[in-house]
Amino acid sequence: MTMRRRLLTLSLSVPLALGLLGTARADEGMWMPSQLPEIARQLKAAGFKGQARDLAELAKPPMNAVVKVGGASGAFVSKEGLVLTNHHVAFGVIQYNSKPGRDLIQDGYIAADRAGELPANPDYRVLVTTGFDRITDRILADAKGKQGRAYFDAVDTATKSAVAECERDPGYRCSVANMYYGTDFYLVRQLELRDVRLVYAPPNDIGNFGGEVDNFVWPRHAGDFTLLRAYVGTDGKPADYSPDNVPYVPPAHLQVSTRNVKEGDFAMLAGYPGVTFRHRMASEFANQIDWQLPSRVAVYQRMIDVIEGTAAKDEAARVSYANQVRGLKNTLKRAQGELDGLRRSDAARVRREDEAAMFAWLDTQADATATKADIAAAQAVLDAGVAMRERDQLLGLIQSQTQLLRVALTVQRLAHERTRPDAERESGFQQRDETLITGQLKQVQRRYAPEVEKALLTDLVTQYQALPASQYVPEFNAVFGTTPAQLKRKLDAMYAGTRLGEEAQRLAAMDADAATLAQSDDTVLKAAATLLPAILRMEEASKNSAGELLRLRPAYMRALIAFRNSQGRGVYPDANSTLRVSYGRISAMDPRDGVHYRPLTTVQGILEKHTGEEPFNAPQPLRDAIAKGDFGSTAEPSLDTQTVDFLTNLDTTGGNSGSPVLDAQGKLIGLNFDSNWEAVSASWMFDPRFKRAIHVDMRYLRWLLAKVYPAPHLLEEMNLPAE
Amino acid sequence: MTMRRRLLTLSLSVPLALGLLGTARADEGMWMPSQLPEIARQLKAAGFKGQARDLAELAKPPMNAVVKVGGASGAFVSKEGLVLTNHHVAFGVIQYNSKPGRDLIQDGYIAADRAGELPANPDYRVLVTTGFDRITDRILADAKGKQGRAYFDAVDTATKSAVAECERDPGYRCSVANMYYGTDFYLVRQLELRDVRLVYAPPNDIGNFGGEVDNFVWPRHAGDFTLLRAYVGTDGKPADYSPDNVPYVPPAHLQVSTRNVKEGDFAMLAGYPGVTFRHRMASEFANQIDWQLPSRVAVYQRMIDVIEGTAAKDEAARVSYANQVRGLKNTLKRAQGELDGLRRSDAARVRREDEAAMFAWLDTQADATATKADIAAAQAVLDAGVAMRERDQLLGLIQSQTQLLRVALTVQRLAHERTRPDAERESGFQQRDETLITGQLKQVQRRYAPEVEKALLTDLVTQYQALPASQYVPEFNAVFGTTPAQLKRKLDAMYAGTRLGEEAQRLAAMDADAATLAQSDDTVLKAAATLLPAILRMEEASKNSAGELLRLRPAYMRALIAFRNSQGRGVYPDANSTLRVSYGRISAMDPRDGVHYRPLTTVQGILEKHTGEEPFNAPQPLRDAIAKGDFGSTAEPSLDTQTVDFLTNLDTTGGNSGSPVLDAQGKLIGLNFDSNWEAVSASWMFDPRFKRAIHVDMRYLRWLLAKVYPAPHLLEEMNLPAE
Repeated sequence: MTMRRRLLTLSLSVPLALGLLGTARADEGMWMPSQLPEIARQLKAAGFKGQARDLAELAKPPMNAVVKVGGASGAFVSKEGLVLTNHHVAFGVIQYNSKPGRDLIQDGYIAADRAGELPANPDYRVLVTTGFDRITDRILADAKGKQGRAYFDAVDTATKSAVAECERDPGYRCSVANMYYGTDFYLVRQLELRDVRLVYAPPNDIGNFGGEVDNFVWPRHAGDFTLLRAYVGTDGKPADYSPDNVPYVPPAHLQVSTRNVKEGDFAMLAGYPGVTFRHRMASEFANQIDWQLPSRVAVYQRMIDVIEGTAAKDEAARVSYANQVRGLKNTLKRAQGELDGLRRSDAARVRREDEAAMFAWLDTQADATATKADIAAAQAVLDAGVAMRERDQLLGLIQSQTQLLRVALTVQRLAHERTRPDAERESGFQQRDETLITGQLKQVQRRYAPEVEKALLTDLVTQYQALPASQYVPEFNAVFGTTPAQLKRKLDAMYAGTRLGEEAQRLAAMDADAATLAQSDDTVLKAAATLLPAILRMEEASKNSAGELLRLRPAYMRALIAFRNSQGRGVYPDANSTLRVSYGRISAMDPRDGVHYRPLTTVQGILEKHTGEEPFNAPQPLRDAIAKGDFGSTAEPSLDTQTVDFLTNLDTTGGNSGSPVLDAQGKLIGLNFDSNWEAVSASWMFDPRFKRAIHVDMRYLRWLLAKVYPAPHLLEEMNLPAE
Repeated sequence: MTMRRRLLTLSLSVPLALGLLGTARADEGMWMPSQLPEIARQLKAAGFKGQARDLAELAKPPMNAVVKVGGASGAFVSKEGLVLTNHHVAFGVIQYNSKPGRDLIQDGYIAADRAGELPANPDYRVLVTTGFDRITDRILADAKGKQGRAYFDAVDTATKSAVAECERDPGYRCSVANMYYGTDFYLVRQLELRDVRLVYAPPNDIGNFGGEVDNFVWPRHAGDFTLLRAYVGTDGKPADYSPDNVPYVPPAHLQVSTRNVKEGDFAMLAGYPGVTFRHRMASEFANQIDWQLPSRVAVYQRMIDVIEGTAAKDEAARVSYANQVRGLKNTLKRAQGELDGLRRSDAARVRREDEAAMFAWLDTQADATATKADIAAAQAVLDAGVAMRERDQLLGLIQSQTQLLRVALTVQRLAHERTRPDAERESGFQQRDETLITGQLKQVQRRYAPEVEKALLTDLVTQYQALPASQYVPEFNAVFGTTPAQLKRKLDAMYAGTRLGEEAQRLAAMDADAATLAQSDDTVLKAAATLLPAILRMEEASKNSAGELLRLRPAYMRALIAFRNSQGRGVYPDANSTLRVSYGRISAMDPRDGVHYRPLTTVQGILEKHTGEEPFNAPQPLRDAIAKGDFGSTAEPSLDTQTVDFLTNLDTTGGNSGSPVLDAQGKLIGLNFDSNWEAVSASWMFDPRFKRAIHVDMRYLRWLLAKVYPAPHLLEEMNLPAE
């Protein structure tokens, strides 16, 4: 409680250190709404015209208009349950409603009236956060005094109990959010709207204009938005789809702005960012930058080379592994982007010096002994992980990047888990997971070539064999040997003696019980049986470490919070898919020497990028409307044309897709849909020089609805001018 | 004379039409120095502080400091013959002086003193233009009353006579420059300095930083400069290299500026631009944009596909054709860039409307009948060419893009030419050319694969066969047939019955006389013998057309000049490798929606681009110096760092490499070395939105000489501060 109280009573008289490169700026932060009153002064200084305390109330506007939708973010934009989110967030709904002769992806969709609104896939949800209560004491009550795995389990049990109790109220989905790495726990209660319908989608060539080519790119020209509507039963309560359902009446909705926006304007965004690592310890930053990312790049490049090299002369193998190679390349590209960004920001040094300053400050505090001991203990847990990092990376890839061996491990693990009651089985191996596993077993048929798997294992295990013996795991040594020569013999034997390449054999193995499996003479199944105890042992050790870190990290976080508070700064928790608020401004960018990105794009750029071919195939009606130049009230006067997207320095990460962007008056000016490539590293460090977020300008939406693919009834419903 | 006089007496009271898209702007123009007094008012309005009439005098500063060097441009920068040009213009000199153990390309070079200055390859020249005299009457005297080929030959004979007479003065090289497409002719007289030496070259990783990747790219970070020195005999006259030679004392030299430069500053450039087509007729613009470039792109892409497809399974063939494919791809890329640019500028429409306005104006003039008749006749010549353009393109490629057939045609042509006195032989087939031809015959060994040549011919001739019969040429039909089935039979027979694939056979054929060749039963030689009369016939027709255009185009040019004059505008002649001047300003650029290019780059960009690998491998001393930040008087105060390159809107084209860029006071502020990609189409149309030129900032040169690769003696010689 102590630290939280200190945070809440934080004095803000010390100005934020705006000029220090790499340290927190006014524009950094994914704040819990409840924290906003603490930073009311900065919010006001940044240009916000409303009351910070209003933003803190989940039950009041504007926060009660912000929703979680399709796993990302969105907002109510009318009093009749109209929800605005991204085209890519609603893509599944659009796809679900497409069929031969009705291609809503290509053509877009405008529901002429309520009856024309198309039901989403049944698992699609709109969630409205209605409760956010601190239950730290309850969650940690049984964990106190425990350590490692026991601590972990106690928190897990208390969490499940709190969720179950909360979900007794039908129509609600609940979860427990871990804030500041185990320091605080909040019970999140969300109204679960299960009848969601498609109202308006632009053609994919507008919603996804630029496609993969423009992904992460600024300047951008996508109209990445879709309008949905949430429905409830006639009793006003959440219900499955029924033609009798009625539009949900939200407690509040956002009003789309009719004003113009320009560089420097205040902007604010609310949504559900997924995960960040900014408050990780300095050693974790160093590990990520000096080892994790570079070695991921290197190992993934090796895997790509091995697969492509082996499959070069085998067309069938090349096709089989195309998907896996694509995944490896994506991971590699992202790792390289993150690495480049963290190096550019000198993140390891910045975090190291920041942490050293924290420790120096801690030394001046009374009663810091216990805190320092906990931090030292946490550091020891991390160090132990570092000592085995090469091994853990390679053994992980051996399990995840093979096809036949992975399937054999899954089959053995399933047999092992089946010996326990279903509820106690490891997640992923319960009865409800078996359909998925069957699917995976079948998929192998199209994704496996023995010579590629052997080459991949040869490469990965050879690297493992080159590690110091202190990192060896006996069971892996038994299966693969400890020299390349042994490895070759063992792999040849292993892949000569297996019939798991046949689908029937795999499915039969899955159906077999542990005893039958134990008697199988299939060489890959036997190898998996040998490896399984080692994997379970390492998993157990990992859970033990996780429990210890859950217990020990709060000491570090409390010290960091207190240190920041002593500097007059607040600390937001790292992102964890809970509702957060970021504020900043519409902001240009200088990506590199000599180049300046303006913060607003225009329809001119659509014509410039248009090639007539995907992903730059602007529909004819759009091009005609641009050529006509009839932009009405939606044109930006200073540019004398129609804007499309704009750029802010708002703090976002994956999950913020569909977040509403508000102006100083709380009016809706934009819809978040992407970040720039230079911001890939922002999950670890926010560098104000390079971190930007990309939004659809609401004026572009208004123009499309007014002039290009008209929906006057929706403009009217949103209380917007007809043109 | 009339029109020239009218141009010279041009009133400039009508302001230039600066606001009209695509029409000439104040910043467009490659002016002959003699024209500058005519546009003195615009020059002054643009910011020039000197006297325009001084610029018109080739024998006065600054023009007498501007030289032609290594085929491009340069300038004297000291009173002791120091010449500044591009690193890429002097590259041959640097390469010539490199040897095992002394890699001047990689290491760069600083001559410690005169004795250390290294002689260039003996054919390297510095040319100083000393005379530029209008000799139109002399050149056209015998041509008057003639037509076609006879007109062409009369001009050619008069030209050769004028050149021979001029070159009687030893130490001079002379040429006749054709201005305004046959309207005017000038005798250009140039002092030919034959002893040129290498004084200072930065390492290639500075001079060519960015290499092919950055070619045509802004923002740019190359230090593309080299210092040479011209030497003469002790008598002060041009001489071949001798250790006794002394530095040439130029009549004037440019002073490198010590002032700062910024966006918007006046800039002016002098040099030797190669070729432009801006005053071509509207139908030629349409032909270039609607047919020539698109069909070049299409046909070249087909050839690339055919070669790559045929050679896909043949490693040896792939290697053999790698060079040809690279050439085809370069041509295709450039054609596509030119096409994109011309379409972006809507050049066909702009030129068409401009020409229509000229004709409308012409209709208001008295005595325009003869002019209009000549223009109509010129148009008819062009139309005749258009009627056969598909055929001419394909037959041209059949001759130029094959290996064996090309060689056979060369051999037959050489035998044909040898029947005439050497002086009367076609250029390229004289005795002095035979060494070169022998080399080509040998080279075929490494560049030929029969299946690729057959595939290429199949593709090209099939396209030819699909043309209307009106375009057919009987001899080509005889050799290749008129249907794909005939073609296949004939090609199979042709390549089965030839031994020209053997080097000895090719060389023997070259040595054979016409009679012997006529008896050869080599099938490819026989095909070439059949084709040769057709080729000679088409060549003759082409020369006849060229003669007619030389006679008729002046009517069009005179009309255009008079029309422009009536608008208060002057007309510069299209570029033809003679000395020209362009003026404008240091200028940012908006290459596409949302992106703004600043006009100055800084050393920060070198660090950003540096990867440690070619072409982004900034040398350690450079990186150290940047890190040290010791920029002294060469730093740009507003940026607080060292600039590298800058961008202007000056009008340049190929040949302007090494052109000095002067400020309003005539001081040297930059060294031209490239254009931006968007400007590739400027050879046809200057679009002020996109045409930019890229220069080395002289402050970067000064900083490199002061702090990075020091040459204090050269700074002193150039009268520049030591740091």
